[in-house]
Amino acid sequence: MSMIEPSLIQAIHTHNHILCISHVNPDGDAYGSLLGMGWILHHLGKQVVLAMHDQTSKEFQLLPGAHQIIAPNAVADHYDLIVFLDASSRDRVGSVYQENRHQGIPVAVIDHHVTNTYFGDINWVRPDCAATCQMLVYLADALQVPLTGALAECLLTGIVTDTLCFRTSNTTAEVLEAAMHLIRGGADLATITQRTLNQRSLGVLKLWGMVLSELHFEEGVIWALISREQLKTAGDLSGDGQLSSMLITALEADISATFTEKIDEKGLSAVECSFRAKPGFNVATVALELGGGGHPAASGCTLPGTLAEVTTKVLPALKQVRAIYANQ
Amino acid sequence: MSMIEPSLIQAIHTHNHILCISHVNPDGDAYGSLLGMGWILHHLGKQVVLAMHDQTSKEFQLLPGAHQIIAPNAVADHYDLIVFLDASSRDRVGSVYQENRHQGIPVAVIDHHVTNTYFGDINWVRPDCAATCQMLVYLADALQVPLTGALAECLLTGIVTDTLCFRTSNTTAEVLEAAMHLIRGGADLATITQRTLNQRSLGVLKLWGMVLSELHFEEGVIWALISREQLKTAGDLSGDGQLSSMLITALEADISATFTEKIDEKGLSAVECSFRAKPGFNVATVALELGGGGHPAASGCTLPGTLAEVTTKVLPALKQVRAIYANQ
Repeated sequence: MSMIEPSLIQAIHTHNHILCISHVNPDGDAYGSLLGMGWILHHLGKQVVLAMHDQTSKEFQLLPGAHQIIAPNAVADHYDLIVFLDASSRDRVGSVYQENRHQGIPVAVIDHHVTNTYFGDINWVRPDCAATCQMLVYLADALQVPLTGALAECLLTGIVTDTLCFRTSNTTAEVLEAAMHLIRGGADLATITQRTLNQRSLGVLKLWGMVLSELHFEEGVIWALISREQLKTAGDLSGDGQLSSMLITALEADISATFTEKIDEKGLSAVECSFRAKPGFNVATVALELGGGGHPAASGCTLPGTLAEVTTKVLPALKQVRAIYANQ
Repeated sequence: MSMIEPSLIQAIHTHNHILCISHVNPDGDAYGSLLGMGWILHHLGKQVVLAMHDQTSKEFQLLPGAHQIIAPNAVADHYDLIVFLDASSRDRVGSVYQENRHQGIPVAVIDHHVTNTYFGDINWVRPDCAATCQMLVYLADALQVPLTGALAECLLTGIVTDTLCFRTSNTTAEVLEAAMHLIRGGADLATITQRTLNQRSLGVLKLWGMVLSELHFEEGVIWALISREQLKTAGDLSGDGQLSSMLITALEADISATFTEKIDEKGLSAVECSFRAKPGFNVATVALELGGGGHPAASGCTLPGTLAEVTTKVLPALKQVRAIYANQ
């Protein structure tokens, strides 16, 4: 609690007309921190405007305040302060922030990403926090804003989604403590988990069925192919890493991969590759060498070609990297 | 913390040769609480014996102290005190406790099940706790035993497994607080989650594939059939409710069911039915009427007959109960 940037507290106290924005392709922590900051500033009697590049996705429309988020074209020029939430760099917020219109307005950054570029006039960056919403628990506390009602619900949503309900490896005792305060303040953990993590369409379950019935396993590597035809029956699954995460739960596997057939911007066949590794193994380098990125335990890349072409190229690399770590 | 049965504290202080036992078909809370109690009593300098009806299953053999659990035939006659952990009734512990041999020895019961029959001389039953291991956090605290090392690891294992890593609806702020203390004491949440909830055999994933590719959905009820042949390819899955829990995540479904074909003790065909319901729906009554039991959100029963016979009987009942709640 003692690690809050003092200039941030001062900026909040001395400014009255505040624009809050979060990142494109927003997740639960983007919505939770944007709305949470809105409720904090509202409690302090500030005039606050919330804006987002994307339209609010269905699963977050029920969050208190979500209908007040405005689109880029409704954003004005004159604010006292602009607060970036959960955004690691300026270009992560899309068209909401416009250099030419907003230059000169002080910018405060509140973010937990280790990759943050410190692009604000005030930068409060806490990579030790599992979610930006966790930081806002400390901020609300410092500003003596009670962690109850709508605020508690928004902040717990961000913590639950960013930690996959306390399952990610950065779930510290402090994360549980923050969540505990929010539940005591009235946030309903079961409802939030149900709404954000425990929902998928029947089509997605059927796709999982098709994919899991045709699993491949060789030399410690488990993988699955997802064709465009299969995807069509399931609806859009873009960016869904759940299948890849499910494959790596196989006891026998050290590395997992899913290969999803796509059509790229030029109308050509491409394959989205998603890799996962057990502790002690590393899939970051494979993805990096293929032009992608990520972490040792989870990485990915997109390659041109058919499913057959891409797997012929990628699988030997995965088996090789698995062998190296297995023999260490 | 103030709600600990004072006679339990006194019994622990005044007895020195203590037998601890837990229930048959042990889960993470059975192992966690048995071993946790062992570590608490060990810290207090007691002579303690841990016994279990079943052999220690593979996933819990790594728990500190697990190799010291003895089998029923190694249990002696003479103890000062017998502590039942996580067992709702005397017959839940199998052959470890023998009426004729152990009669006269005082029995203490520590359990969180609402169905507990209060069969001990001392009964500390806390249905408000999500796990017996959560109760032992309070007990250790009251006995001034530090929540560190092996004790912390065992207790966090029980809390994580009984709440499916904080996803069950009885995950209160107090559950998170207890877990927070254990993590601060050195227990590794990520490792425990990985070891207990995020592991399954390749065969199980393949079975999920077969089952999910043949999903049925009618009138708000989603269901799947698991034949003995399919089970054979996947290995033993008895008591595994994960598939049923996965089905109820389907957005379109209000009630889910899995029907698993078995051979009963008499060699006849039987079907294990596992039901789940979304909030606002109730599958407890259906299971109860069919001779089973459970909660509004999760229940089950076992019925004689083939898959076809049992589903013909059960599905109309599920659809009917779904319609009643949907129209409320």
